[in-house]
Amino acid sequence: MTPGLEDLFTLLRFPSVSTDSTRRDDVRACAQWLQQKLTAIGLPAALHETPGHPVVLARNTHRPDRRTVLLYGHYDVQPAEPLNEWRTPAFEPTIRDGRIYCRGATDNKGQLMAHVRGLQTTLEKDGDLPVNLIVLFEGEEEIGSPNLEPFLQAHKEELRCDVVAISDTGMVGPGVGTFTYGLRGIACLEAKIHGPSIDLHSGIFGGAIANPALAIARLAATLHDAEGRILVPGFYDAVKPLEDWERKAWAELGDRDVETLELTGSPALFGEPGYTSTERCWARPTIEVNGIGGGYQGEGSKTVIPREAMLKLSCRLVPDQTPNAIQDLVAAHLEKNCPPGVRLEIKRGHSGNAYVMDPHSDLGKAAQNALTRTFGGKIALIREGGSIPIVHAFKTVLGVDTLLLGLALGDCQAHAPNENFPIDNFIAGVQLNQYLLEELA
Amino acid sequence: MTPGLEDLFTLLRFPSVSTDSTRRDDVRACAQWLQQKLTAIGLPAALHETPGHPVVLARNTHRPDRRTVLLYGHYDVQPAEPLNEWRTPAFEPTIRDGRIYCRGATDNKGQLMAHVRGLQTTLEKDGDLPVNLIVLFEGEEEIGSPNLEPFLQAHKEELRCDVVAISDTGMVGPGVGTFTYGLRGIACLEAKIHGPSIDLHSGIFGGAIANPALAIARLAATLHDAEGRILVPGFYDAVKPLEDWERKAWAELGDRDVETLELTGSPALFGEPGYTSTERCWARPTIEVNGIGGGYQGEGSKTVIPREAMLKLSCRLVPDQTPNAIQDLVAAHLEKNCPPGVRLEIKRGHSGNAYVMDPHSDLGKAAQNALTRTFGGKIALIREGGSIPIVHAFKTVLGVDTLLLGLALGDCQAHAPNENFPIDNFIAGVQLNQYLLEELA
Repeated sequence: MTPGLEDLFTLLRFPSVSTDSTRRDDVRACAQWLQQKLTAIGLPAALHETPGHPVVLARNTHRPDRRTVLLYGHYDVQPAEPLNEWRTPAFEPTIRDGRIYCRGATDNKGQLMAHVRGLQTTLEKDGDLPVNLIVLFEGEEEIGSPNLEPFLQAHKEELRCDVVAISDTGMVGPGVGTFTYGLRGIACLEAKIHGPSIDLHSGIFGGAIANPALAIARLAATLHDAEGRILVPGFYDAVKPLEDWERKAWAELGDRDVETLELTGSPALFGEPGYTSTERCWARPTIEVNGIGGGYQGEGSKTVIPREAMLKLSCRLVPDQTPNAIQDLVAAHLEKNCPPGVRLEIKRGHSGNAYVMDPHSDLGKAAQNALTRTFGGKIALIREGGSIPIVHAFKTVLGVDTLLLGLALGDCQAHAPNENFPIDNFIAGVQLNQYLLEELA
Repeated sequence: MTPGLEDLFTLLRFPSVSTDSTRRDDVRACAQWLQQKLTAIGLPAALHETPGHPVVLARNTHRPDRRTVLLYGHYDVQPAEPLNEWRTPAFEPTIRDGRIYCRGATDNKGQLMAHVRGLQTTLEKDGDLPVNLIVLFEGEEEIGSPNLEPFLQAHKEELRCDVVAISDTGMVGPGVGTFTYGLRGIACLEAKIHGPSIDLHSGIFGGAIANPALAIARLAATLHDAEGRILVPGFYDAVKPLEDWERKAWAELGDRDVETLELTGSPALFGEPGYTSTERCWARPTIEVNGIGGGYQGEGSKTVIPREAMLKLSCRLVPDQTPNAIQDLVAAHLEKNCPPGVRLEIKRGHSGNAYVMDPHSDLGKAAQNALTRTFGGKIALIREGGSIPIVHAFKTVLGVDTLLLGLALGDCQAHAPNENFPIDNFIAGVQLNQYLLEELA
């Protein structure tokens, strides 16, 4: 078996679903296992309590003449539902065709364990690391890291460092070293529409009162025009246009349209006019419906007017949009466009700023050197569509940039059923982590 | 004790929940008790098997010179859940403030036993009935009467009659004799929108492909204009306008707006412009969303683009709309308005024609005379918003009209916890049944 894989399997078996309060003990057990593992390889680790799930913090002995690197990862995972769409059990790692299938395999336990195994290898070989290291693993990334920024604030001195490195992003293709210099931010909102006090008989009352399920649909339909442009007033005002070199560099990565269709299985592409698929995902903001629900969800029919209906929205943000301002704009738009006869309730969800760093800086170049030594060939310079809010927190609280050296492929199914991680990427990741500390040293 | 109440209590104690397969024996025992009861009062009765629950059929000796009347009722009931919301046990009849509390008290056992007790009284007094009578009690009304139309077809000769009478509708107020001469029909459809082959990460792919949850909302939003008029082309074409006398008669019943707000708990009234609440519910067609769903339904957020989303629709129909034509029109509208980038699938659900009879016909007048003799005062001539598909089956299979002489009040909680039936309404119903046969003779 590939060295380190057994440890990864143990880690994957914890159903550490941070959003599910019934999994609280599993999340904690997962953190405790990591604490013990880090301590065992020579990095004394501690569990730090937060109002939510604990933070695992470890470090080697720091010396004043070395650069300090903070490695960040998260040990919590997304819910595994819908369970019936998994080919093998969601929390039992299974190898098929050179890939490990399990919730969290890619996001983020596989990449996190590549860090750990890389550190273990160097420590076994050299007895020390070439840098001062801080390891920070959190358990709330999938719910928006609500307690990490306060934690950074409270432990600012202890966490002082020169740079952060994270493997929680993607590669543009198998074996292509990929450096991510930008991420989209996020701003979530939930709208609930209340109508009658109970589900009503749609024969007796249908026609005389508003239907919350219809009202929520009509409300959602006001967010975009027919071509996919967002209609919320002011939504695009703070958006920084793409730079010429970016559009050129991304065009050189090739047309991702066919790949997007293959990866998603969608019947067609659809998005904001005037941009390529790549540009739409990496550098343009969105409003997506993550969930809509109201009334009867079972088989067949039940002729009710439901008493309420809900809409879960997430906006992906780009520089220089700010989450609070966007939540304000979207909430105001929803309030203004709520259909008559119902009552609207809006709840703000988690959020995080977009992030962009200069890939041509010294630190950026060091990261690219480590990638070249691991993968060879030309390194892809990209942004990503996802959000790692904590990257923005590292910048504002600790004042440092974050190097994003992701190992996920487009078909790794992060957040979806049958999530998987190629064993080759795990092996490369273990190697990359060793080179990275050398290059940063 | 009020005569007949003991029999009603016995009938109520059978937990004859037709949808619950564990209650199958209770449903049958209930039918058997009715068979014995009818036979005992002088109406020889038989149990007829169906693929579901049995039909109880009884008749007096028919003579060729008399009108033949078919009395219909149903002995099955809705489930009693949620049980903890009942003030007294759901299947133990309890009298409080002049009302009998029990599942089925109103719908339909109380009204059914008013028929039986009325017949018993006449038979004891006169030794015969003034008409040829057929009694048909079914045990599947609460699950949509799946086997009744085939039963009517198979027993067409035996069931030949001049008119049907049913007590399973409502009264506009306590002590107000109410004749229902129309019901809305129904046509159900389900739309499913398919997008990506799996739930996708809304960060990675958001912006480049269409979102099924948003698409289903945009599609639902095309069905009505902002004021509540249906936009499906041709939807209103076959609608028979309200007659002047109907609008006038309904206006005289008083403004039901306040009552509608109280009964529903809705924050406001909402509906098609140009009609009163009464007219909207009784004589105007609707399209209601009975269910909408797609993506994450749990607590908090899960930032996915769901792979599919669904919409359950039911149209309430009025004369002369036909369910098939309406299903065609709505399906064509959905196909035409489906947003780009997704695939639409449409499934037709159950349906039933609207029903209306002329309340000024001889039969209608006979029913109203019986109501006047029972309740005194002016008789309310109404339609109802719900659907009783079997009424349409009596018309198409047996070729006869149905007289709807309901005894339920708005606060009798049919289908809900603490269902109840005023003892006064039972006494009136027993009387009404005697007068009705005299007037029809």
